[in-house]
Amino acid sequence: MSVLTVALDAMGGDFGPSETVPAAAQALSLLPKLNILLVGDQNQLVPLLQQHTLSSHPRLHLVHASQSVSMAERPVIALRNKTDSSMRVMLELVSSGRAQACVSAGNTGALMVMAMRVLTMLPHLKRPALCSSLPNLHGRHTVMLDLGCNVNCTPEMLWQFACLGDLLAKHVHAVSSPKIALLNVGGEVIKGSKLVQETAKLLASDKQFNYIGFLEGDQLISGQADVIVCDGFTGNIALKTAEGIARFFYSQIKAPNEADKVKNKSNTAAEIQTSLSVMHPDHYNGASLLGLNGIVIKSHGRADRRALSNAILHAVAEIEQQLPRRISERFIAEHTYER
Amino acid sequence: MSVLTVALDAMGGDFGPSETVPAAAQALSLLPKLNILLVGDQNQLVPLLQQHTLSSHPRLHLVHASQSVSMAERPVIALRNKTDSSMRVMLELVSSGRAQACVSAGNTGALMVMAMRVLTMLPHLKRPALCSSLPNLHGRHTVMLDLGCNVNCTPEMLWQFACLGDLLAKHVHAVSSPKIALLNVGGEVIKGSKLVQETAKLLASDKQFNYIGFLEGDQLISGQADVIVCDGFTGNIALKTAEGIARFFYSQIKAPNEADKVKNKSNTAAEIQTSLSVMHPDHYNGASLLGLNGIVIKSHGRADRRALSNAILHAVAEIEQQLPRRISERFIAEHTYER
Repeated sequence: MSVLTVALDAMGGDFGPSETVPAAAQALSLLPKLNILLVGDQNQLVPLLQQHTLSSHPRLHLVHASQSVSMAERPVIALRNKTDSSMRVMLELVSSGRAQACVSAGNTGALMVMAMRVLTMLPHLKRPALCSSLPNLHGRHTVMLDLGCNVNCTPEMLWQFACLGDLLAKHVHAVSSPKIALLNVGGEVIKGSKLVQETAKLLASDKQFNYIGFLEGDQLISGQADVIVCDGFTGNIALKTAEGIARFFYSQIKAPNEADKVKNKSNTAAEIQTSLSVMHPDHYNGASLLGLNGIVIKSHGRADRRALSNAILHAVAEIEQQLPRRISERFIAEHTYER
Repeated sequence: MSVLTVALDAMGGDFGPSETVPAAAQALSLLPKLNILLVGDQNQLVPLLQQHTLSSHPRLHLVHASQSVSMAERPVIALRNKTDSSMRVMLELVSSGRAQACVSAGNTGALMVMAMRVLTMLPHLKRPALCSSLPNLHGRHTVMLDLGCNVNCTPEMLWQFACLGDLLAKHVHAVSSPKIALLNVGGEVIKGSKLVQETAKLLASDKQFNYIGFLEGDQLISGQADVIVCDGFTGNIALKTAEGIARFFYSQIKAPNEADKVKNKSNTAAEIQTSLSVMHPDHYNGASLLGLNGIVIKSHGRADRRALSNAILHAVAEIEQQLPRRISERFIAEHTYER
């Protein structure tokens, strides 16, 4: 594989450059073929690059952007006024071909509308879907989408999400015939909202899918499905609920202190932490904005350097699998077939 | 307080009488003022009562019902055909005043439609809401509703859920001015679906509420709100997601074995299990079907005897607080005020 270039929004996220700069350093050290374009305010970034001895790193390049998008900013306002923001410049680096993918921990809504404007949607797709790959109890991944881009959905949109998830599971996670499920309030065919009921008919009658029916909220990580499809409102609530509960448990399983070490007991917190680390939200950080003419990875806002570095690695996996090209081919074929 | 009588659907749940009978025994031993009417097939129940030395318990009475409702049965079919089911007979015991509350771990949809038919709704309420009291990080409870009765909701329905949750928090959990929040995909006022946006206006303009705005999925157990309001589709997915993740963590934190005990390490699994036990889904089992002319408690289908016993105790708390009367008074006052 030739050189890979990822543009990173250095100003994005709750912690900004203090975490994005070390994250870039981590990702560069893990992947010798990776180049990073670090996008943001040079006045803030230059001192940090010096501090992390990255000023003359051969694979890290600083791209100045004078503005940044805040987490609470209205997406349409950011789209109109923040044309020299780190987020916008990052997306333009992908659009111009200088980067093959980009990563931001910034405002999700702003990232979505800016990405739609700068990169545009692939043919026959109207809006992107936010898609995450959750670790499951079979030691594999379950792709879940939409996680918040589309709070009001139609059955046709959910059918499109199923196509997008199917492709991501096939190519990024190497599942030959991904099992597709719909998230619902019960497993029985009679259960659920009108949206879910109508989408179920579409998926069941479409031979290209290995559709397995409904799954409930307590089956997200069971590994029964490779792809779980839902509207963006439900998906966002479900994912954040799962992460909130998981973070609570991690916070309770504290590392042993010196006083504890003298006791004669075991299955220690440290051992439990290790066995559970793969399920930690930071471990699988990096959700894909699928359906765009370019690779855009959204990191958690609260991501630290390790989590951000994982998001960069996820971007590289999508570059290697040429995901936008595969999505484009599938939707063009679908459209041709329909006519 | 005088004698309290709870009717228990002995045939309900994934385990049926093998767990409901011991649950009745546990609850009776915990509360000397409690009477239980155990409703179900006497051919199955009599041997179990003998086995648990409950045959001549002075506060346990067997009420025969020849049918039972299965978990997958369509609610309208159960309503029509299962007029002598344990669920139906249990509800009729409340309707006739022989019991002051009832508890079932059976089919939620069937329980809802049968309860609406047998008990009827309180004035000005159209459909019940399923409401659970989750433990939160402040060591108190957060009331959450609807959890699945109403998959398609209007803003007016969500406003009603806020009233119901407000009353439960005030009277069952003794919170003087319950903080009410709406579950949403972001904390900012611009976020969310049309349903959430319109409901927010209703709640913010209603002086009877201490409305605090939006909360996200990762804040369910944070304790920021005393009442979290959502539609039944979202609530069901969120609650089951939380329980699924919690059960995963509990399953991973195993008790120490003999080999481990010789090691010199600590913050042990047993200690962690103890510190986390209050957050276990079994601990807070027992969701209320609110808005009916009678107290109906829905237990998890998979509840074991301990969890079922907690559901019975929750029923007793609602009897002591006369929750249906308080709900009725509030909605009648609201209606009178409107005119």
